[in-house]
Amino acid sequence: MDTSSVKDYLIGLQNQITTAIAQIDGGNFLSDAWEKPPGEALQGHGITQILEGGEVFERAGCGFSHVRGPQLPPSATHARPELAGAPFEAMGVSLVFHPRNPYIPTVHMNVRMLSAQTAQGQNVAWFGGGMDLTPYYGFEDDAVHFHRTCRDALSPFGSQLYPKFKAWCDDYFCLRHRNEQRGVGGIFFDDFAQFDDSQNLAMLQSVGNALLPAYLPIVKKRMHTAYGERERAHQLYRRGRYVEFNLVWDRGTHFGLQSGGRTESILLSMPPLVSWSYQLQAAPGSPEHDLMQRFIVRRDWL
Amino acid sequence: MDTSSVKDYLIGLQNQITTAIAQIDGGNFLSDAWEKPPGEALQGHGITQILEGGEVFERAGCGFSHVRGPQLPPSATHARPELAGAPFEAMGVSLVFHPRNPYIPTVHMNVRMLSAQTAQGQNVAWFGGGMDLTPYYGFEDDAVHFHRTCRDALSPFGSQLYPKFKAWCDDYFCLRHRNEQRGVGGIFFDDFAQFDDSQNLAMLQSVGNALLPAYLPIVKKRMHTAYGERERAHQLYRRGRYVEFNLVWDRGTHFGLQSGGRTESILLSMPPLVSWSYQLQAAPGSPEHDLMQRFIVRRDWL
Repeated sequence: MDTSSVKDYLIGLQNQITTAIAQIDGGNFLSDAWEKPPGEALQGHGITQILEGGEVFERAGCGFSHVRGPQLPPSATHARPELAGAPFEAMGVSLVFHPRNPYIPTVHMNVRMLSAQTAQGQNVAWFGGGMDLTPYYGFEDDAVHFHRTCRDALSPFGSQLYPKFKAWCDDYFCLRHRNEQRGVGGIFFDDFAQFDDSQNLAMLQSVGNALLPAYLPIVKKRMHTAYGERERAHQLYRRGRYVEFNLVWDRGTHFGLQSGGRTESILLSMPPLVSWSYQLQAAPGSPEHDLMQRFIVRRDWL
Repeated sequence: MDTSSVKDYLIGLQNQITTAIAQIDGGNFLSDAWEKPPGEALQGHGITQILEGGEVFERAGCGFSHVRGPQLPPSATHARPELAGAPFEAMGVSLVFHPRNPYIPTVHMNVRMLSAQTAQGQNVAWFGGGMDLTPYYGFEDDAVHFHRTCRDALSPFGSQLYPKFKAWCDDYFCLRHRNEQRGVGGIFFDDFAQFDDSQNLAMLQSVGNALLPAYLPIVKKRMHTAYGERERAHQLYRRGRYVEFNLVWDRGTHFGLQSGGRTESILLSMPPLVSWSYQLQAAPGSPEHDLMQRFIVRRDWL
């Protein structure tokens, strides 16, 4: 596996995405290059890009990171006992965009590669990632478009991938303490090494490249919809679920914070402004109620 | 151990505290009695009291709960192997008050009792709890008053308790992913069974009874201080740390959410409105900077 070409791809993807988002927004991303201090077990560096207080995006974070560690954590070697304790390398791009207008959904995408060497000197690489959409108001068109774009990104690699990754996404992005989905889902995969390296990577790239075509048409369609205090209050309340999921259930976030990851880069995913309120329930028949009944559920969107 | 007298005390404490808070605020607590649905492993009931959108308190939650389980979780029997797998009973009062005015600190208090029967039919009870203060602007007077009140509540039970529980509080209420304390601390204890049952309970009651004398004078002193957008923005940002601590590190919250506790009661502790912002740093010399330098640190407050 030539990791430097993967790195070039990921940095290019990050720039392509943030450039497109900045263009729609009119604002600029701050670009913050960081390096892990020497002496820590995990070594590495990254580029954190963030746009805050924009016209269209209230908080849009997109991070690239590349770390090396002396020893794969046990969680990563469960399916690969031959790599237990091996030095490893991980790189990826991760993003969460929180729009200002409650009619635009929040989106999350992540593409990552892990690689390690067996004791016999053999390189092994595997891949993970996906994307999912979290609307505050439900539009069937948007959910269908997002899922179709995900399916189309995967279909060159076999028709079985989309249904598998779609179900995986529903399983993963579930707030089990509320028995509630995070949004309308999308695709999620982990530990992927089904094909040869170059085909695995091609699949990962196809997912990464699908983010803009999956999301931008929705942003453009919804960004001029008028809204008022009611929609805003609903959005801030629903954003609380995003925080709950990421801090309580998301393995990357939770593990990252507990194991000495770079806090401000991990918490790029936090919404800019969030509210909590006791047992808030939408009135039956309202669009907020419709969201919960027909969108924030497991559903076939094709 | 006569658990019904403990229960009477706890329900009385909850009412005493919420009555005093409602009186200062001018608003009313909603009182929500709940019961666990039959058939779940954990059985029990509780009273959740919450005041939202008040004049002085933007969100003030105070919950009583009493649950019975068929089997003590392993985490609870580490120090008591003779109770492994025993049926148990737990009851407590827990509160977090988030004021509107950024000059009033947030307060948290919890008092709880666990009890179980050994295979020989012997009753064993142990206690936990504490209180801690989280200011948004630092006032030495307030921190000193809070800590002195904690010390005075514990001193009838021996002079060694306050220093021990104060250090325990500093250790516990630490955001390890930021190497940052949650606030100016207070006292924290767990697995407490140092004296006989009645003396252990007397100590618990002394802590519970100290909440109002520890907190109300601070509320009254700060509630009329004028503030503007700057102080409000700082408060919302700092509240993000409260969320991070509770969802990532607080054992009660995290374990409760992951093990089927009552979500809306557990999340009484969430602030009403919270913000996140990338690498926000207070300007040296500002009161926000002073808070971090001189208050949100481990410090002897007596």
